[in-house]
Order: sequence, then structure tokens, then C-alpha cells
Amino acid sequence: MEQQEQASAIRRKIFALFSEETRDKGFPKYFNYFIMTLILVNVVSMILETVKSVYEPYHSYFYAFELFVIAVFTCEYIMRILTADLAFPCGNRLRSILKYMFSFYGLIDLLAILPFYMPFTKLDLRIVRTLRLLRFLRLFKITRYNNSMELIKSVMSEKRSELGVTCFVILIVMIIASFLMFYAENAAQPDHFPNVLACIWWSIVTLTTVGYGDVFPVTGIGRFIGGVIAFLGIGLVALPTGIISAGFLEKLNEKNKDKEPEKEQSTEHHDGEKCHKQYCPYCGHKLD
Amino acid sequence: MEQQEQASAIRRKIFALFSEETRDKGFPKYFNYFIMTLILVNVVSMILETVKSVYEPYHSYFYAFELFVIAVFTCEYIMRILTADLAFPCGNRLRSILKYMFSFYGLIDLLAILPFYMPFTKLDLRIVRTLRLLRFLRLFKITRYNNSMELIKSVMSEKRSELGVTCFVILIVMIIASFLMFYAENAAQPDHFPNVLACIWWSIVTLTTVGYGDVFPVTGIGRFIGGVIAFLGIGLVALPTGIISAGFLEKLNEKNKDKEPEKEQSTEHHDGEKCHKQYCPYCGHKLD
Amino acid sequence: MEQQEQASAIRRKIFALFSEETRDKGFPKYFNYFIMTLILVNVVSMILETVKSVYEPYHSYFYAFELFVIAVFTCEYIMRILTADLAFPCGNRLRSILKYMFSFYGLIDLLAILPFYMPFTKLDLRIVRTLRLLRFLRLFKITRYNNSMELIKSVMSEKRSELGVTCFVILIVMIIASFLMFYAENAAQPDHFPNVLACIWWSIVTLTTVGYGDVFPVTGIGRFIGGVIAFLGIGLVALPTGIISAGFLEKLNEKNKDKEPEKEQSTEHHDGEKCHKQYCPYCGHKLD
Amino acid sequence: MEQQEQASAIRRKIFALFSEETRDKGFPKYFNYFIMTLILVNVVSMILETVKSVYEPYHSYFYAFELFVIAVFTCEYIMRILTADLAFPCGNRLRSILKYMFSFYGLIDLLAILPFYMPFTKLDLRIVRTLRLLRFLRLFKITRYNNSMELIKSVMSEKRSELGVTCFVILIVMIIASFLMFYAENAAQPDHFPNVLACIWWSIVTLTTVGYGDVFPVTGIGRFIGGVIAFLGIGLVALPTGIISAGFLEKLNEKNKDKEPEKEQSTEHHDGEKCHKQYCPYCGHKLD
Repeated sequence: MEQQEQASAIRRKIFALFSEETRDKGFPKYFNYFIMTLILVNVVSMILETVKSVYEPYHSYFYAFELFVIAVFTCEYIMRILTADLAFPCGNRLRSILKYMFSFYGLIDLLAILPFYMPFTKLDLRIVRTLRLLRFLRLFKITRYNNSMELIKSVMSEKRSELGVTCFVILIVMIIASFLMFYAENAAQPDHFPNVLACIWWSIVTLTTVGYGDVFPVTGIGRFIGGVIAFLGIGLVALPTGIISAGFLEKLNEKNKDKEPEKEQSTEHHDGEKCHKQYCPYCGHKLD
Repeated sequence: MEQQEQASAIRRKIFALFSEETRDKGFPKYFNYFIMTLILVNVVSMILETVKSVYEPYHSYFYAFELFVIAVFTCEYIMRILTADLAFPCGNRLRSILKYMFSFYGLIDLLAILPFYMPFTKLDLRIVRTLRLLRFLRLFKITRYNNSMELIKSVMSEKRSELGVTCFVILIVMIIASFLMFYAENAAQPDHFPNVLACIWWSIVTLTTVGYGDVFPVTGIGRFIGGVIAFLGIGLVALPTGIISAGFLEKLNEKNKDKEPEKEQSTEHHDGEKCHKQYCPYCGHKLD
Repeated sequence: MEQQEQASAIRRKIFALFSEETRDKGFPKYFNYFIMTLILVNVVSMILETVKSVYEPYHSYFYAFELFVIAVFTCEYIMRILTADLAFPCGNRLRSILKYMFSFYGLIDLLAILPFYMPFTKLDLRIVRTLRLLRFLRLFKITRYNNSMELIKSVMSEKRSELGVTCFVILIVMIIASFLMFYAENAAQPDHFPNVLACIWWSIVTLTTVGYGDVFPVTGIGRFIGGVIAFLGIGLVALPTGIISAGFLEKLNEKNKDKEPEKEQSTEHHDGEKCHKQYCPYCGHKLD
Repeated sequence: MEQQEQASAIRRKIFALFSEETRDKGFPKYFNYFIMTLILVNVVSMILETVKSVYEPYHSYFYAFELFVIAVFTCEYIMRILTADLAFPCGNRLRSILKYMFSFYGLIDLLAILPFYMPFTKLDLRIVRTLRLLRFLRLFKITRYNNSMELIKSVMSEKRSELGVTCFVILIVMIIASFLMFYAENAAQPDHFPNVLACIWWSIVTLTTVGYGDVFPVTGIGRFIGGVIAFLGIGLVALPTGIISAGFLEKLNEKNKDKEPEKEQSTEHHDGEKCHKQYCPYCGHKLD
């Protein structure tokens, strides 16, 4: 009995590491900082592993660090499973665990460590390991940035219909331009514009004003189409920017309106003090 | 008589496929989804036809699909003609049909199938077939996006005067810059800046910040002009974006104001009632 | 006496061609359209003159058109001088003429024709002729676009202080980045980054996100600096856009506020009607 | 005693050159203009020194100008130290001097001249001299631009949380895209995409829409990823622009609201007076 209670106390302590309420101070805070630093350092090490001149002389260090990271992430995963019934309370402990395992972050946590434990599969593990980058998203949970993140997300989601229409118009413009470009340039530059797919690549590069310069029109008509598309690319920036600006301001106005009634109330309070003189501030009538 | 009624019933059923009121549910919904999917798949097949490595081994499949698409679009066109008097009611059936045929979407529907039926004309049918891409516009009719589309269109149209002036200023700047660039770079790079037309191409590529890198100034004075134009290109993005932002917010404010008067009215009403009871609406004190 | 009156009547008729009040209808309207079309066609011909394959076979036509344009513009200039006392009334006719000649548009009108009449000067007349492009600005006088032009100008001028600070910050960032880039890349690419001036060219091309690709960093530290500058380039678009957006909305709000008081007045009027019932709408007190 | 007073008077006169209150008129104004011009000319000379064709024939002039600049800046630095107790008054003169020396501008002033006085250190003095560019920041002190600078700074600082989240999201997108690009293009272009670091360079160049064209994807999957990143680059412009626009308008609204309450206050006052007279503030009726 006592043992069970002790176990429960330990599990609550572990859960305190992950709970949003407790993790902003004391030991949980340092634990979370440690995990986040580990994620960042791991990303840097993953980047450096691809640089031959760095990787080859130090590959044993990279391997040791990899083992350490996997060990920590595995511990964290086990700890999260053990405390799943506290994070996802639903009576049945097994269901809680499954709920965690199939939650968004649960899957990310698993994918971060899984590739290491199945080296004999035929998958290209290098690519699968990239999934670990998704652990980055855990960094978003820093409370300090939560509000701003929510604001940006809500603006994007409220304006998703307008942004969607913009994307759709752009898609149509892009495809039509690609066909026209194909007919205009195919004869002059069969290598650069061999088919409409290649023209779509050109369209994207031009519409977004990236302009690598790997493909560009050389004929008169091709340059005319290219010029029109380039100018439409300006609109492509202007439209979503305008929509998003309006979205942020809409949010702002809403917030201000929510406040104003409060203000009025507080003003009334203030007036209340003035009413000390027992006169209504509006009609000047004596108040009882 | 009965036969005629039956025919009329069939025609109404066919019209239900196209009518905005009925096409969002039941069989018309699936019919429209089918047509839209066909348009999309047809665009993809048109793109792939230009890719030799895909087209050559499968050209018979492409031809078969083309026949199928033409057949369906032709059926749809005939069905739309048969029900034209329901879509464009004006007493005379022939006039209804002509009204449909010369409506914007009627012409697009025709242009989508026409090239197939006149293979002996001297026109380059490949290019004419591109007109079929315009059928894409039918996709805009999806009700879900209608409001956003209308909003964007109304903002653009209200601000068309400001946007027009911006375009005009840009045009003038572009042409003057092209002449200056011609005098600055022609001697140093006669191949890249052979005449003012080529300089206009450079102007467009620079002003829109695409910057392919096919033509760029190399002389000191040319680079100075180029730098000025590049900075004006920033303004070229900033001005229309600012105009469009303001347009969206204007729309928003209008919408909010349309709501506010209602509020005020209801307040007045409320006051009215209170006044009736001879109480001050603010302090609730009985008024004599 | 009669002759003088007749001359005066003719002069008034000529002036009607240029006066803002009369030129929007009747013959003056067509005259102005003719002048504007001539300006546009002249610009096109000036562009085509630089295209050897077009100019050489038709150079006599180009010369004839040039003569015609100069003739018309000279006539217009003389007519404007003759009617200067009506356009710039100030008692003394000579002073009126000088006022016109040294006004902004007066100088442009002169510069458009002057180069033709002094072919023996040592100036490169080709370049001086480019000044004729400034006649383009006359097109701005189309009343339809006047309001939008004024709006854009007033927004730019109200925000000139913020825009100026932005430009100044950009200038400083650009120069510091150019020095850093010089130290980073000069050793690796002495041809592309021979001195700080060349680095300033790189800075401009990168900050404005044009990115021709004629010069780009190849060393690690150079790419780091380049990346930072490229991201600052985003801010370079975002800041003026935000400033200009705010400027347009400010104008809008001002306009709305000018209207609102009127509304309030009308509301008061409305209240007045209610007061018909002889009760104050606010305190519910009987009114005498 | 008298001598001390005289010294104090001289020091006050010197301080008048730097004090914000006095430097906008009379001699201090010209002194400041001289210093600012010197900073600007010095920057130009530093740029030209790196241009061999200019530097070599005139290197003695450059050296003479350098000596002159250092002399003036050293004098200014000494003068500022002498008057530090007036600029940073805190009782103890030594502490005032240290306060100045370790203030932001004090360090910049020192760094501008220090490299000249330690030619025997092993530091690359060329680079250290670049620090003198920071003296540019003194130009910000021009009062005319102070308000705009403050406005821009306060908008940026109020929105730093949203802008920070945007940067963070971009960073994550950039790193994930770099890994994907590495797996997609490494095999096809081992020279251009040798490791993830090089792909990050590509990501930056694409996301910011600079697009030099030194590295670009050539495989189908690489182009697909590139296209997605290029479109996200549009969002990268749109989001901060929207945020900054909203920030400027927020500031504007606040300013307008600060004005409105004053109005309300004055109305309250007005009401107060009226209340005193026992009249309804709205209908002016005598209240019982």
C-alpha cells in the first residue's frame, strides 16, 4: 500500500516535469531547458554530420552524442508513457497511454527515437532521422511565445478563405502562364523549356520573384509573358500581405472593443466616487 | 402532351445539375465534382502530354482520355444548350440559347471543345487547346469561396484608381530608367543592352526584384541607375500593398459600421422603454 | 480695336485648349487626346529607333515623324506662350510669359523641343532628347486620376519622416555590411569584390532581394553576412509597407471623422423629433 | 578662484556643443554639422581607400585626411571627457567620466580613434577601423528625425514577440527544408549541395527571394521542395509586414485615444459645472 503511494508520488513528480502548470519554475524548468538545449544541439550535430571534413575525423564523438541523445529521448518517452494517465486522464490507464502515443506530440516523440531501434529495415534511415527535427515544435510550448503564436495562428485561420482564393488564383495564373511560355520558348530554348512541367518551375521562380536565372525567356513574346508574370508576382506579395494586415488589425479592434465596455464600467465606478456627492453624473439627479 | 411534360421534367432535372440552388447536394453535387475532377485531371494530362518521356510510350492512352474528355464536355455543352431557357429565361427559347452561347462561360465551354472538331483548320491547335484551361474558372463557382472572391474583387475594384496611378508611375519610371540604362551600358555591353527594348526587359526584371541575372549593369553609372531602380522596386511592392491593406480594412470598417447603427437603434429603443417608466437610463433613479 | 478683340477671342479659344476647366469636353478634349497620343507614339518611336533592325530600313519615316512631332510640340509651345497671360495672370504680359517659361511644365515643354534646334552643340543630343520623356508627366493631368495621385502624394509626404529614417537606417546597414563583406570575400574573390564600392553594389542587389547572381559570397563568413543582409532585406520591404499602409488608413480615418460629425448632427436632429414628445432623450425629463 | 570660475565657464561652453538643448542653434549647431560632415566624408574616404586606382596615386592625401579626422575626433573625445560631469551629473567627477566612457556612445567614440593609437597590436586594424562606421549612429541624434525613430523603435519593440515567433517558425522551416533538399539534390549535384550547411545557404537565398542562382535544384523532387519554400518566402514577407502595419496603426489609434479622453475629461468638467447648476447636461433642463 505504502509502496503504491510512493510510486504514485514519484509519478506525480515526473509528471511535474511535463505539466504546463509546473514546468516554468524550479527543477522542471531546468529539465525542460536541458531537453530544449539537447534538441538544438542535436540539430546542429545532425547538420555537421553531413559536412565530411567535420564528420570524418570526429565520427566517434558524433556517434557517442547520438547514443546520449537517444538515451535521453528514450527516457523521456518512457517517463511520458508512465505518466500518461495524469496527462490524459480517462479512467483506464491503457487508454491514456494509447491517447498519448497517438497524440501529435506523442508520435513526434516516438519518431525521434524509433529509427535508431530498427537499423535492419530497408528504409533510408538518414531521411527518417530527419523526422527528429519535428521535435523542434516542442520549443513552441515556451509559454512566453504562446500568445503571439496563438494570435498568428488565429489570424491565418480566420483569413484562410481569402488566402486560399489568392492561392487558387495564383495556381491558375501560373498554369496558364506555363502553357503560354511553353509555346513561346520551346522552339528557341528546347533545353530550358522542354515541357510544361519545366515552365511551371520557371513560373514559380518568377512569380515568387526568386529569379535564380537558370531558366529565363529570350524571345520577344516570351519576355512579354515573363514581364506580365513578374508584375503579377508583385500582386502575389501585395494581396496576402494586405489580407494578413487586415486580419491583425481586426483582432486588435476586437480586443479593444472587449476592453471598452470594461473601461466604461470602471468609469462608472469612478463616477460612483463622484456620486459620493449623491448626484447622478448623467442626469444630475440626487441619488439615494 | 404527356410526352412534352416528360421532356420538360427531364430538362428540369438536367438543369438541376447546373443551377446554383440545387447543385450543392445529392446527385448534382456529385456530377459537379465529377466535372471539376475531370477539368483538373485534363489539365494534368495536358501538362504530361508535353513531357516526351511520358507521352511517347502512352500516347494512345492520352488520346483515349482526350476523346473521353471531349465527349463529356460536349454532352455537358449540349445539356446546357437544351436547358438554356431555364438558365436564361426570356420567353424566346432561341434567344435564351444565344444568350448562353455568347455568355462568358458559354464561350469558354465552346472553346474547350471546338478545336477538336476542326482539325483541318490552319490554326496551331495546340495553342487553341490551351483555351481549355479557362474552364478552370468554373472552379471559382464553388460557393464556399464565393464570398472571399467577391471581397477581393471589390477591394481591387474600389482601389483600381490608386493601383492604376501606381502602375502608371511605374511605367514612366521604367521607361525613363530604360533609356538612361541604354545610354549607360550600350557601349560597354552591346550584346546585353543592344536597344531600349532590351533595357525595358532589364527594368522589369529589376523593378519586380526577380533579377534573373541574364542582364545586369557593369559600368559605374549603370550600377548607380540599377541601384536606384532596385530601391524603387521596394516601393513598387510597398505602395500597392499599402493600398490593398487599406482597402481590406475599409471593407471591414464598413461592415462593422453597418452593424453599429443597429446597436444604437436598439439602445434607443431600450432608452425609450426606460423613459416610459420615467427612470434615468443611467442611474436608474426615478425621474419626476 | 476690333482686330484686337478678335485676337483676344482667338487667344481665349487657344487657352481653352489648355485650361483645366474647359479641356474635358468638346474640341479641347480631342486636342488634348491628340497631344497625349502623340507623346505616347513618340515614346514608342524613340524606343524603336534604338532597334537597328527596325530603324535602318525605315529611318526616313522615323525622321519624318520626328519632324512632325517637333512641329506640333513647337506650335503648342508657342500657343502656350501666347496665352501665358491667361494661364498666369499677373498684369504684366512679359512676366506671365517668363512665369510660364520657368514653371515646371514650361521647362519640360521647352526641353522637349530645344535639342532639335541646336544640332551644332557639343552635347550628346541623344541623351538630351530623353528629356522629352518628361512630357509623360503631362498625362498625370488627366482629372480622373488626380484624386488618387493627390492621395498617394499626401500619404508619402506625411510619412516622409518615417520613410526617411528607414532609408537612413538601410544606408548605414548597407555600408557596414559592405565593409564586412569586403574583409570576408576580398581574399577569396578579388575579381568580384575588389573594393568596398563593388560590395555596395552587392549590398544593394541583396537588400532589395533582386539577386542578379553576378556577385555572391562563397566563404562561410561571407555567406553568414549575406544571409543576415538578405533577412534584413525582408524588413526593408516590411517597414515601408507598414508605414505606407498606416498612412493610407490614417487618411481614411480622417475622412471618416470629417463625415461623422455631420452624422451626429443629423442624429441630434432625429432626437429633436423625438423631443417633440417634450422629453429629454437622455434624462427623460419633460422639456418646456 | 577666478581661474576656476573661468575654467568652469569654458567647460560649460564646451558642453553647450554637445547638449541636446543648446546644439540646435548658433555655434554649437555649426560645430555639430561640421562633425557630421566629417563623419560622412570619412566614410567616403574609407570606401575610396579600398579602390586601388584611386588610393595609389593619392595615398598621401588619404593619410593626411586620416590624421586630420583622428585629430578632430580625439579633441572631441577629450572635450566630452572634460565635460562628462555636466552630461552625467552624479557628484563624483571620476564616476561621471567613467559613466561616459562606458556609455554606448562613449565606447563608439573611443573605438573610432583607438585603432590609430595602437598600430603595434596584432589585430587586423583595417577591420577594427570599420568600427568607426558606428559613429554614423550619432547622426540619429538629429532632433528632426528623433520622433520617427522613436515611433519605429517602439513599434518594433511592441511587436517583438510576434516578430520573434515569425523568425522562429522561419528558422524551423528553413532547417527542415535544408535537410530535405540535401537528400533530394546531394546525389545529383554533389558540388552545389555537398552538405546541409550549403543547403541552409540555398534556403536563405530562396526564402528571402534573393535567388542569386549560384545554387538551385535540378531534380524533380528538389524543384518541388524549392517551389514550396519559394511560396513560403512570400509568407515570410507578408507576415512581418502585416504585423508591422498593425503595430503602426495601433500606435496611431492610441495617440487618437489619448486625445479623446481629454475631450471626455473636459466634457466631464463641463458636466460638473452644469451639474452644479442642477441642469441636465444634455437638454439643459433644470433638474430638481
